[in-house]
Amino acid sequence: MLENDIKTLAASGEKGLIELVMASHAGMTTDEFEQIVTDWLATAKHPKFKRPYTELVYQPMLDMLQYLRDNGFKTFIVSGGGIEFMRPFTEKVYGIPPEQVIGSSIKTKFEMRNGRPVLVREPEIFFIDDKAGKPVGIQKFIGRRPIAAFGNSDGDLQMLQWTTAGKGKRFGLIVHHTDSEREWAYDRKSHVGRLSEALDQAQTKGWVVVDMKRDWKVIYPFQRE
Amino acid sequence: MLENDIKTLAASGEKGLIELVMASHAGMTTDEFEQIVTDWLATAKHPKFKRPYTELVYQPMLDMLQYLRDNGFKTFIVSGGGIEFMRPFTEKVYGIPPEQVIGSSIKTKFEMRNGRPVLVREPEIFFIDDKAGKPVGIQKFIGRRPIAAFGNSDGDLQMLQWTTAGKGKRFGLIVHHTDSEREWAYDRKSHVGRLSEALDQAQTKGWVVVDMKRDWKVIYPFQRE
Repeated sequence: MLENDIKTLAASGEKGLIELVMASHAGMTTDEFEQIVTDWLATAKHPKFKRPYTELVYQPMLDMLQYLRDNGFKTFIVSGGGIEFMRPFTEKVYGIPPEQVIGSSIKTKFEMRNGRPVLVREPEIFFIDDKAGKPVGIQKFIGRRPIAAFGNSDGDLQMLQWTTAGKGKRFGLIVHHTDSEREWAYDRKSHVGRLSEALDQAQTKGWVVVDMKRDWKVIYPFQRE
Repeated sequence: MLENDIKTLAASGEKGLIELVMASHAGMTTDEFEQIVTDWLATAKHPKFKRPYTELVYQPMLDMLQYLRDNGFKTFIVSGGGIEFMRPFTEKVYGIPPEQVIGSSIKTKFEMRNGRPVLVREPEIFFIDDKAGKPVGIQKFIGRRPIAAFGNSDGDLQMLQWTTAGKGKRFGLIVHHTDSEREWAYDRKSHVGRLSEALDQAQTKGWVVVDMKRDWKVIYPFQRE
């Protein structure tokens, strides 16, 4: 990363990214880390869209979350991303409170600093919430099997399998990024967010596959204007 | 345990108990384990009270939980006990759904058995939600600092410290088991549920200490009859 080798970093996947953040922020308290995330989100802008990252959310996803909650569902985020990175913005952006956000995380340690209790980030992985780790994380953090699951990569394969193997009616959906103009187009050959095996299994398992280019009139909220 | 040495087991604390259940149930799926817990709870009775364990809950605790929820609070259980042991009954007994129950747990592994996805219990500890582990667990599973925390042993000390060190108004409470007739009386010398350091700190920290014998008119719901 110091040599600006983004390709190698990308190839290292979720685990590589977690390890990078882990090493760079060890020794920091969780409160300090949250402040860094909050400050970064308030100022950083996406190089292509020139907008804050918190505006680059999918309108159809927001609609779906609202629709589910209006019908008595409780909604969760189950991401391979860092849990402490997501929680500061998920309630405002997705209407999902911190305790309903599951993700990868590093170990933390309770200690007293200047007579005050703090939680300190340690340079060790606690949990990787990706691939076969997703159903494990769901069981650990939520404690019951979802009725419906939505994914967009092979990192979601086991979560979709676990969810739709439950008794009674279940629902699985995959968003296929097919829109190189309005967003991006990638699937089987991508280093980040590869979508291949899950796409194949969608056919036999009866999971809905959303073709972004064909099926989504609007992608980002600001495009409604 | 095979030699019926309950004292040694008790002295081994939460960790010893977790390790026992861990060893005895490794290889089992999470669904199978949940069934065992459910069956046991439906039939087992407490030797002293001759009632199911799910009836041996504290009425003042139920009242407090209801009072908090009626006033817009979200209630959680943060216990040193096994998470997979508690979740099958907490919603019915305490009105707290599985995803709001935090506890100790063993590692689980996703795998396919006869073409169906299962989560298998492994003989390895994932997380001990006790003592300094409680604030860590709160941060990992809930992701925000509680407004109020209620405990009854030194296992809750760091949770009380972490909670009441937050900005703004916070509340800490300790239930002191002082009623040898209606329940039990124990504190500084007990192997299980020792309450000593937290009792001392309650004075300086301003945590409320409930004296069970003096303060609770009713202990169990069935005593209201």
